[in-house]
Amino acid sequence: MRTFVRHVVLLLAFVSSVAFAQDKVVYHFDDAEAQATKGLRNIRNHLDVAPDTKIVVVTHAAGIDMLMEGARDKKNPNIDYASLVSALKGRGVRFEVCEITLRNRSIGKDKFIMDAEFTPSGVVRIGQLQSREQYAYIKP
Amino acid sequence: MRTFVRHVVLLLAFVSSVAFAQDKVVYHFDDAEAQATKGLRNIRNHLDVAPDTKIVVVTHAAGIDMLMEGARDKKNPNIDYASLVSALKGRGVRFEVCEITLRNRSIGKDKFIMDAEFTPSGVVRIGQLQSREQYAYIKP
Amino acid sequence: MRTFVRHVVLLLAFVSSVAFAQDKVVYHFDDAEAQATKGLRNIRNHLDVAPDTKIVVVTHAAGIDMLMEGARDKKNPNIDYASLVSALKGRGVRFEVCEITLRNRSIGKDKFIMDAEFTPSGVVRIGQLQSREQYAYIKP
Repeated sequence: MRTFVRHVVLLLAFVSSVAFAQDKVVYHFDDAEAQATKGLRNIRNHLDVAPDTKIVVVTHAAGIDMLMEGARDKKNPNIDYASLVSALKGRGVRFEVCEITLRNRSIGKDKFIMDAEFTPSGVVRIGQLQSREQYAYIKP
Repeated sequence: MRTFVRHVVLLLAFVSSVAFAQDKVVYHFDDAEAQATKGLRNIRNHLDVAPDTKIVVVTHAAGIDMLMEGARDKKNPNIDYASLVSALKGRGVRFEVCEITLRNRSIGKDKFIMDAEFTPSGVVRIGQLQSREQYAYIKP
Repeated sequence: MRTFVRHVVLLLAFVSSVAFAQDKVVYHFDDAEAQATKGLRNIRNHLDVAPDTKIVVVTHAAGIDMLMEGARDKKNPNIDYASLVSALKGRGVRFEVCEITLRNRSIGKDKFIMDAEFTPSGVVRIGQLQSREQYAYIKP
């Protein structure tokens, strides 16, 4: 009977680890012009209410532009993305750029702000964060 | 050996509970003008084919407008959202409005239809429904 | 003690089966004009970097048009979707059309390319692939 109890405890521990793990969310950006300002604001609000959330931003295609040096909101040029990104990075958010997009668009890594990191494929990364690491998905 | 069998049964019960749990879906709305008519129709079709699905609609940013009193489709003003929402609520759908958006846009809760409920942060809610309660995600 | 070890092994086997299962992703298309060219390119890039990923494309509403005979990118008419779809199907991607949309838009199944398959409801399918089969979700 002691082993029975022990294994129930183990099982409950596993179930709990699934249920009460840290909240993790991947934010998907493939169009900086339409998504950057609202999406960065979403993430700030997210952390204001749930500061322990682990957030990864994955950008690819036309989404990578928001992480380039000097990037601004076209409709609202006083919004400078680098400072918003830097503030969020200081709160633990990770920002990633798709390397396939870099090759397709012939853009060098030196065009990006220091806070940007790189991933071999944006869509593969978005899929694997969900299926391998239980990230939730939000597309701003 | 009896305990072995018992624990296999327990393990299978847990695995089954994961595999055959009720279907749950969070629908994400952040732009009522682009999403409300098509998204509410998606949900109606969803329940027509899978009536036991638990559906939560989370609205934030420009998505909350579809739950305001008198909201209509701008391109098709004879589409009155309140009656569509009410019919879906009668089938078990929950409709939620982001309270951060209310503060940012200075809108009072009294502007919303009776069927609307409120959540402290739309994006936090969308993340947690996925990671804590195994909701699937659909963005119309 | 032997049973204890045995059940730990069982539990680890289950945890591993969750953690190291094949990567699976559902791609959601509800607007062929905005999504088809970029989404099909996303999928090709996805398989170039992670060729073992199981990908299901679910189309409904205005998304089904990309799987109709003769469908082309309106902005770039030399992009013929059928050949892109066929190449991806050869790499294991499944393409599905929502039957509710067919009825709502009065379109027959004979209007679609041979590579298309059908599903009773696109949104139900997208939800169930996530909640029942642990698919990740990407909306191009």
